[in-house]
Amino acid sequence: MINIKLYFLAAVFCLTACNQATTPRPTGDLGVIIERETGSVQIVNTTKPAMLSRVEGLGDLSHASVVFSRDQRYAYVFGRDGGLSKIDLLQDEIAKRIVQAGNSIGGAISQDGKIIAVSNYTPGGVKLFDAETLAPLADIPAVYGDDGKLSKVVGLVDAPGQRFVCSLFDADQIWLIDAKNPRQPQVQAFKNIGKQPYDGLLTPDGRFYAAGLFGEKGLALLDLWQPELGVIRILADYGKDDAQLPVYKMPHLEGWTVAGDWLLVPAIGQHEVLVVDRKNGQLAKRIAVAGQPVFVSARPDGRHIWVNFAFPDNQIVQVIDVKDFSLVKTLQPGKAVLHMEFSPRGEAVWLAVRDDDRVLVYDTATFSEIARLPAQKPSGIFFTDRANRIGW
Amino acid sequence: MINIKLYFLAAVFCLTACNQATTPRPTGDLGVIIERETGSVQIVNTTKPAMLSRVEGLGDLSHASVVFSRDQRYAYVFGRDGGLSKIDLLQDEIAKRIVQAGNSIGGAISQDGKIIAVSNYTPGGVKLFDAETLAPLADIPAVYGDDGKLSKVVGLVDAPGQRFVCSLFDADQIWLIDAKNPRQPQVQAFKNIGKQPYDGLLTPDGRFYAAGLFGEKGLALLDLWQPELGVIRILADYGKDDAQLPVYKMPHLEGWTVAGDWLLVPAIGQHEVLVVDRKNGQLAKRIAVAGQPVFVSARPDGRHIWVNFAFPDNQIVQVIDVKDFSLVKTLQPGKAVLHMEFSPRGEAVWLAVRDDDRVLVYDTATFSEIARLPAQKPSGIFFTDRANRIGW
Repeated sequence: MINIKLYFLAAVFCLTACNQATTPRPTGDLGVIIERETGSVQIVNTTKPAMLSRVEGLGDLSHASVVFSRDQRYAYVFGRDGGLSKIDLLQDEIAKRIVQAGNSIGGAISQDGKIIAVSNYTPGGVKLFDAETLAPLADIPAVYGDDGKLSKVVGLVDAPGQRFVCSLFDADQIWLIDAKNPRQPQVQAFKNIGKQPYDGLLTPDGRFYAAGLFGEKGLALLDLWQPELGVIRILADYGKDDAQLPVYKMPHLEGWTVAGDWLLVPAIGQHEVLVVDRKNGQLAKRIAVAGQPVFVSARPDGRHIWVNFAFPDNQIVQVIDVKDFSLVKTLQPGKAVLHMEFSPRGEAVWLAVRDDDRVLVYDTATFSEIARLPAQKPSGIFFTDRANRIGW
Repeated sequence: MINIKLYFLAAVFCLTACNQATTPRPTGDLGVIIERETGSVQIVNTTKPAMLSRVEGLGDLSHASVVFSRDQRYAYVFGRDGGLSKIDLLQDEIAKRIVQAGNSIGGAISQDGKIIAVSNYTPGGVKLFDAETLAPLADIPAVYGDDGKLSKVVGLVDAPGQRFVCSLFDADQIWLIDAKNPRQPQVQAFKNIGKQPYDGLLTPDGRFYAAGLFGEKGLALLDLWQPELGVIRILADYGKDDAQLPVYKMPHLEGWTVAGDWLLVPAIGQHEVLVVDRKNGQLAKRIAVAGQPVFVSARPDGRHIWVNFAFPDNQIVQVIDVKDFSLVKTLQPGKAVLHMEFSPRGEAVWLAVRDDDRVLVYDTATFSEIARLPAQKPSGIFFTDRANRIGW
């Protein structure tokens, strides 16, 4: 009798365990949602769509960003407090967490997926870590001038050929970092690129790095195919028209987007989206929109552009048709739409509506709401297909 | 004693089962290799790189193609014999297999991942299936003319907005299929688009569909943003110069590639790669290469183009630098290089070397060999990041 009971219990346990083993979780349709005030992230499935789990204990997630491992199993979360957390999307837990600096702004993952790079404000510099263990590989202080000061580092991205690119806010520099030997990275510094670069972007093909300038107009541009040509200035009229102009939020350059032959850009302090001809860098059109744009994001097929706005217009989202640059839709998703993330092939978009404590999912063809998911002050949404992209 | 023994056995079994449960397999770095003569596929991991398993019993895999489910768990293999097999990349087995026609040429998966479309030679037409169950949803015979003949269907791709596009070889038509209601798909037929379309491609943004013509020169082009404009003819000089010219293999249009502002195209029957200006469709340059090119494939960052060749030059692979269209490398990977697949961010490329029974992996920055994996007459290589792409 005891035999049978034990056997039965063991069998039940085995079935449970085996059942877990036979319902594995693929990673192609996963994502994470940053819940900034609670220092947690949700792991989500974009097919259902639904929340799968919540992982807590990630520290200060204001201004957090995320990259994914090459196999899409791990999300690396860069926190404002210098925390670097490696989250296991299959086990719903923190696989590893370190605090690597005092004040951090973002990070990137190398082309081969083996190196995590973090850009730090305090102490200013770039650090490289082993993506598997988070063991330190290299520390590159952003020293500038004659007295050993350290610059805040911003706009860090990965580039083809195991390289990273970043900008030094206080030093007016762009750095091209070759990390083929990650314990001895080689830095090529481009100096006097313009005053106070505050953010950077890499074009989707990994060729051009552009830094936005806080201290003057225009953008600093580096052609990674021809770095010997140095940094040039483009879009000389881009920036604040007026020092007194109230700017509610300096737009991130990651809020820029390439759609076919056009570059679409949030105007600074203006209720406008700028259309720039990629060929000659000339302003082709100004599109009047509902507020100061923050993210100007192309649907993956490039036909539609979704725009969100700074306070006090951040309850609105507008959609522009690239065919004729007309406004085709104005949505009111809720209070404080902070971020938008498209599904990989663009049939859906997820919106983080912070002050309504929810995420809304829209059908991008019909603009109808597909789902609303509860979330605690969601601020950023990141899907695993980012693992495949250059320059994020 | 028996108690303890039983308990011990059960515990060992549980540990084994639990261990399987605690070492889950992510899907972001998986792929499949078609082994055409044995009717099998290898499931591979591109990070290690290594073979994980072999799945057999897939029928005639000559000319096989593959698409992936939205979650990257399943590979759908389209066989020449009309077989449609759904392979579970996490369980290393066939999840489902049907034989849906007598002679088939390829397939596609809808934008939302819910519909599999197959293009058939015999009986000529398109069939739609539920991606989960492979249950039939719709059958669209490619009827043309007055006596109910059926055309071979080629060049089937998915397009944004739950659509598919294909070409009718015998009917000189392009079809735009709206599958929003997959049980009642709506077909818009474009007639007299040119003689004998033999293959098709969709640009990576999902906007332009081009069909190559076997029966005359040039390509038929449909702008999906403006289908009301109808099909136009482009590249009027593209095609066979001479009816007597020996063409060892008609190049697939999937062998075309967009790199920045250029379209790179295998010349038909010539030892040349053609460079076409995307802006105006004009031929900008002819690049002399080692043989008749088959696949002209851009590394994901667009800087380099890798080219393989038809018999008798199919032991060679050449690399072109897009910066100045110079040849930067000639490789001799082995006998009969049939296919090339880049890792998602382009740091590596995998080559199927059929007659040497192996797959070679190269570092794309140094051109050094990273790995060689045994494979039985490998003909095609497909990685899971294809799940995220439009028009494959």
